Amino acid sequence: MKAINRQVTLRNYPNGIPKESDFEIVEAAMPVVGDGQVLGRAVYLTVDPYIRFRISQSLVVGEAPAMPLGSVIPGEAVVQVAESHHPAFKKGDFVAGFSGWQEYAALPGEGLRKLDVGLGPLPAHLGSLGMPGLTAYAGITQLADIAAGQTVFVSAALGGVGAVAGQLARVRGCRVVGVTSSPEKCRWAVENLGYSVCLDRKAPDFANQVAAACPGGIDVNFENAGGEVFWAAFNNMKPYGRIIVCGLINRAGSPAEGDLSAGLLRTIALKRLVVKGLIVSDFWDLRPKFLEEVGDLMRKGRFRSREYIVEGIENAGRAMIDMLEGRNFGKTVVRVGDDPT
Amino acid sequence: MKAINRQVTLRNYPNGIPKESDFEIVEAAMPVVGDGQVLGRAVYLTVDPYIRFRISQSLVVGEAPAMPLGSVIPGEAVVQVAESHHPAFKKGDFVAGFSGWQEYAALPGEGLRKLDVGLGPLPAHLGSLGMPGLTAYAGITQLADIAAGQTVFVSAALGGVGAVAGQLARVRGCRVVGVTSSPEKCRWAVENLGYSVCLDRKAPDFANQVAAACPGGIDVNFENAGGEVFWAAFNNMKPYGRIIVCGLINRAGSPAEGDLSAGLLRTIALKRLVVKGLIVSDFWDLRPKFLEEVGDLMRKGRFRSREYIVEGIENAGRAMIDMLEGRNFGKTVVRVGDDPT
Repeated sequence: MKAINRQVTLRNYPNGIPKESDFEIVEAAMPVVGDGQVLGRAVYLTVDPYIRFRISQSLVVGEAPAMPLGSVIPGEAVVQVAESHHPAFKKGDFVAGFSGWQEYAALPGEGLRKLDVGLGPLPAHLGSLGMPGLTAYAGITQLADIAAGQTVFVSAALGGVGAVAGQLARVRGCRVVGVTSSPEKCRWAVENLGYSVCLDRKAPDFANQVAAACPGGIDVNFENAGGEVFWAAFNNMKPYGRIIVCGLINRAGSPAEGDLSAGLLRTIALKRLVVKGLIVSDFWDLRPKFLEEVGDLMRKGRFRSREYIVEGIENAGRAMIDMLEGRNFGKTVVRVGDDPT
Repeated sequence: MKAINRQVTLRNYPNGIPKESDFEIVEAAMPVVGDGQVLGRAVYLTVDPYIRFRISQSLVVGEAPAMPLGSVIPGEAVVQVAESHHPAFKKGDFVAGFSGWQEYAALPGEGLRKLDVGLGPLPAHLGSLGMPGLTAYAGITQLADIAAGQTVFVSAALGGVGAVAGQLARVRGCRVVGVTSSPEKCRWAVENLGYSVCLDRKAPDFANQVAAACPGGIDVNFENAGGEVFWAAFNNMKPYGRIIVCGLINRAGSPAEGDLSAGLLRTIALKRLVVKGLIVSDFWDLRPKFLEEVGDLMRKGRFRSREYIVEGIENAGRAMIDMLEGRNFGKTVVRVGDDPT
């Protein structure tokens, strides 16, 4: 075992999309493991969009306060137990826990989730089989009120949440229209994830393409993007449509058009839309049912998971920037240490 | 019976709040009454906020197309049957129907609703006992998901919808915070409608007053206003709060702050808010239950209805402008002809 613990810490609060200089790689001492804890060796860490908001200073009421500069970037990781002081875990186990972006962490046993490595490869436990997948499952099964034949719109269609939401809607008999950020990704999404149509949000006539792809309107918008993608979907919602507000990677509005909120609310009223916020922590108890369904679909070859694996903890900050700017191809995961599986 | 029929017609599409010159009083021939119709003599017509949007040219997708210039202003009225060619109605009956702003109308019997004049005075059948009251009932009973002890926020607290929503929430054990447009109206609302607090939206520190009046946050915002009143409530929503988007009288945003829609969506996600559009036409079948509850409360003296009665059809346009600018005191109704009750 190494004697130092490399960490990625917050050097500056990002202004907009983070820059590499907002992150700092530091060498810390190995953590001291207390009673009821395990020493976890990080194998993969996950780069989720919400981390952007956790490391920012401009938070909305109700969110946790801004983290101090110098803190380890927060986030979940797949770690292997290197040393256990908790009866539920033994050396060698693979668990998921909120260790943050570092090579080693002392983790309370209570916050850990033992992984069923038979279900899928380790990185998938941070994506389709992990928190993003559960988020998608909660939205589709608890909030979206979908039925076969309906049109479901999924932004960030290849992302950790989107890819699962799209596939869960598809197996429920919906017509699923996805949005991602390149023609290559669109092609892959249609061929492998079963989207009926997938649109490139960078296409110059993107808004028209959305209207053309949803001729009868959108029943459910599973909103993972915000900004122009949100508006393109919003302008095509069917009466009584549902909008699941899950992620807002791209928060940019359209300053030229002024404040759009009044029109937003008026359309919600006129079309009797239902808009619901989704945060996965309300739905931890769904995990067994979620893993059962997704695991079963995977075994039957009816579900694909694609991770975009970046090598080395020193590249985690860059991986986050790439993800926010759409240069990833699948759910972004960073390999921090040796994967023995 | 007169030989002419005075009407209020649309001279110009209003730009923002209508001006008196957008309306025109014309003298038309008496309508010809066909089979299955009644000739209705208007007694009261109602001045509802939604009419503003019906007579405007800038409509949102999904709304009816703009009406041609020269059309009679649409809206419901209490009319007395002057002549009946429909078996369900006889001369002298009081009915409500969408006759528009005119003294006489030939009305298909199928679209009419016979009034139970014992329930309350005729003008109340266009307010608390009419479409606005049913709107409030639908929102409170079908969409708001309220429980005793919760805080319910009602804008346009003395309006046709607001006054009923506030009182229905109060009798369900909620703490009801209202907003209206003068200290006098606020006082009246607290003393007569049972609002716990009522705030003047024109007060310079209005937003702070909302926060102070809702120290534990708002469970349900029954939104009848839009604009700054909406934002003051929105910024105080509790997690899992519900927003019923019913009316948006004041559509003005805050241009200085740019596009607020991204922040709106982000807060919906973070607080897991549920935002629902409400249009009363989805809920006609609730009318019997609604009239039973409100009628019962009225008989027991637990419910007040206050109409603001403007004399003369020639003042209907002015009455609408006054209502939109908050110079009314209660639900605005225009007396068009003799009320024999």
